[in-house]
Amino acid sequence: MASSEEQTLETAPDVGELTPPNRTLMGPGPSDVNPRVLRAMSTPLVGHLDPSFIEIMNDVQDLLRYTFRTDNQWTIPVSGTGSASMEAAIGNVVEPGDTMLVPTNGYFGGRMASMAERAGGTVVTVDAPWGEPLDPDDVANALAEHDPDVFGFIHAETSTGVVQPDVPELTAAAHDHDALVIADTVTSLGGVELRVDEWGIDVAYSGPQKCLSCPPGASPLTLSDDAMEKVLGRDTDPRSWYLDLSLLEGYWGSDRSYHHTAPITNVYAIREALRLVAEEGIEARWERHRELAGALKAGMEGMGLEMNAPEAYWLPSLNAVRVPDGVDDGDICADLLERYDLEIASGLGDLTGEIFRIGCMGHSARPENVLLVVTALGDSLEVHGADVDPDAGVAACRRALRSL
Amino acid sequence: MASSEEQTLETAPDVGELTPPNRTLMGPGPSDVNPRVLRAMSTPLVGHLDPSFIEIMNDVQDLLRYTFRTDNQWTIPVSGTGSASMEAAIGNVVEPGDTMLVPTNGYFGGRMASMAERAGGTVVTVDAPWGEPLDPDDVANALAEHDPDVFGFIHAETSTGVVQPDVPELTAAAHDHDALVIADTVTSLGGVELRVDEWGIDVAYSGPQKCLSCPPGASPLTLSDDAMEKVLGRDTDPRSWYLDLSLLEGYWGSDRSYHHTAPITNVYAIREALRLVAEEGIEARWERHRELAGALKAGMEGMGLEMNAPEAYWLPSLNAVRVPDGVDDGDICADLLERYDLEIASGLGDLTGEIFRIGCMGHSARPENVLLVVTALGDSLEVHGADVDPDAGVAACRRALRSL
Repeated sequence: MASSEEQTLETAPDVGELTPPNRTLMGPGPSDVNPRVLRAMSTPLVGHLDPSFIEIMNDVQDLLRYTFRTDNQWTIPVSGTGSASMEAAIGNVVEPGDTMLVPTNGYFGGRMASMAERAGGTVVTVDAPWGEPLDPDDVANALAEHDPDVFGFIHAETSTGVVQPDVPELTAAAHDHDALVIADTVTSLGGVELRVDEWGIDVAYSGPQKCLSCPPGASPLTLSDDAMEKVLGRDTDPRSWYLDLSLLEGYWGSDRSYHHTAPITNVYAIREALRLVAEEGIEARWERHRELAGALKAGMEGMGLEMNAPEAYWLPSLNAVRVPDGVDDGDICADLLERYDLEIASGLGDLTGEIFRIGCMGHSARPENVLLVVTALGDSLEVHGADVDPDAGVAACRRALRSL
Repeated sequence: MASSEEQTLETAPDVGELTPPNRTLMGPGPSDVNPRVLRAMSTPLVGHLDPSFIEIMNDVQDLLRYTFRTDNQWTIPVSGTGSASMEAAIGNVVEPGDTMLVPTNGYFGGRMASMAERAGGTVVTVDAPWGEPLDPDDVANALAEHDPDVFGFIHAETSTGVVQPDVPELTAAAHDHDALVIADTVTSLGGVELRVDEWGIDVAYSGPQKCLSCPPGASPLTLSDDAMEKVLGRDTDPRSWYLDLSLLEGYWGSDRSYHHTAPITNVYAIREALRLVAEEGIEARWERHRELAGALKAGMEGMGLEMNAPEAYWLPSLNAVRVPDGVDDGDICADLLERYDLEIASGLGDLTGEIFRIGCMGHSARPENVLLVVTALGDSLEVHGADVDPDAGVAACRRALRSL
């Protein structure tokens, strides 16, 4: 715990005006927030039980359904950041004694496992290397071997830049074994093709600060009727009161009764962020992410860098780029922050030191940002002695942008 | 669950601009937010691992220590609303097999009990009627009888308008039995005298949307070294990953390593709200709440209404006023909202239908708001046929304000 520099009991701390640096956020999230969403956050509050707030809640629920591509009645923003909606999903669906099948091909499968164990479940795994998606045959075999109650997978793995293909095949296999399917859509919702109903996903959770470009604090969650039937029919209470969906049903459902004070300003924010999704159109938004990240990828490859994921499971919203020989990834990230106020990130877990993670999400996914990240990264790599051709990268990027 | 009015899969919902009504918030929270805090929330984001954000985190921790009157290193905003900091406190301090002593004299003791049970604890109670504080003798007897590991109490009970006096006596009794003390300070922090260190409180949690007048979403929590020693020495993981303080220690402690994405904008907001506390001075702020709520109380009593709590344990931040004969509390609240855009609240639990709950918190605690609530409530009661003297109430209120 960082130490207090002064005896705060005696004297009030002398803390100045809030003046953070003016970053361009091209890391794994948060992404840059549209000024309309920032402005919504300065709106004076109404109470969380105000009749006018109930209309706002309805708006958010409708807009979330549109964005998730679902008709699920049970679609809400959870009062916390993405890990709260993740634990709300797992902690309610997994009962003590249940078995949950989770993947090992990235950072967030491990988090799923930890949450499932804390919920009282037993965890079994289906394996793939970090940087590869799950193989449907491996999933089918694991389902046959373990007969789990719940199967979780990561649709868009932020730690590796991999999108999971073949989702309908995975959900069909799980349903053949009567397992409910939980999908982590933190880095896909609003940026990468995702069709909750059509693909047979029972539960999907997300975060607002990725492709929705909304400040973190209220996080999307949707559950099918089958999933909610299990949640509402549990023998034991979920282990968190705060995230207990049977209690939240009283607030977000037709009763509108008090459970906890909703984060009103974060609900205002996600409403505005989702309005921007609706105005753009969800399919057009997926296409924009694919095109702009494609130009980013062209720039990376043009300067001689290698993407960590092959084209077949490349994740446009999070581009994992191999760190070239002879440079330290941390030095490059610090240099970009220092010289260009530009945030990109290093690798996590098994890929520590091996990749850069470059986001292309929501309001950050704009031509000017793509050009900046390609140009600045090329320059920094050259300064640090890597064998890259920055000018060829920039040329490839701007030509790709020009053709959009 | 409210029904979607349209088939959102086909057509994007047609949701208009965010235009909530312009309320004056004099209920049990949220309170009105100072424009400086609203402005802070429209600040563009930096990343949650940005070096500049670490300075912001340090500022918030220092300011929280000042406001809680503590030197506790372990002082943070929890990423959620007040119930999240409440569950972080209880879910980490209470281990499976522990016994927790909780009060029954209001709504929030019941919530403590539910959280303690979900954490694996056994709950025992110390009783007092709704609307009265705990008697130190009853607490001492309950401690002797049950020998609990943890004792929780509500410093400022939002459901009854009662402040708990004799806190040092309660904590001393608990410590005699080696019980850790958890205090609910949701409706006292920043508005009512509270001295965490001097009073021997081991763990205190709060919400930002009461006397700090900050939008909900990042909620104060402080733990003593003794409490953190217990948390870090647990035999089993806490049952929530999201609220696991041993993991949060990595982010808010000296490592600053990734746990979850902090709600950056809410951290900006609480920093600005706490700067306002520091500028005013914590003791001056307590005094302002006492004086302005005193004028409110003078107005209520002046028109012939009765406070639910006697002077000895009247809670200035939440004034519980008896509903006079012959009127329906819900009708009055709806009338004030409709005619004056003014929010006050009805009673909860045992006091349903018996009291109005009128907040006087933070930025809402201003003379103009006190006059409005006294005048408008008196008018509405008269319209609805209650036996009150509105003019005498207004006169008493303005004379009390004049003398400040």
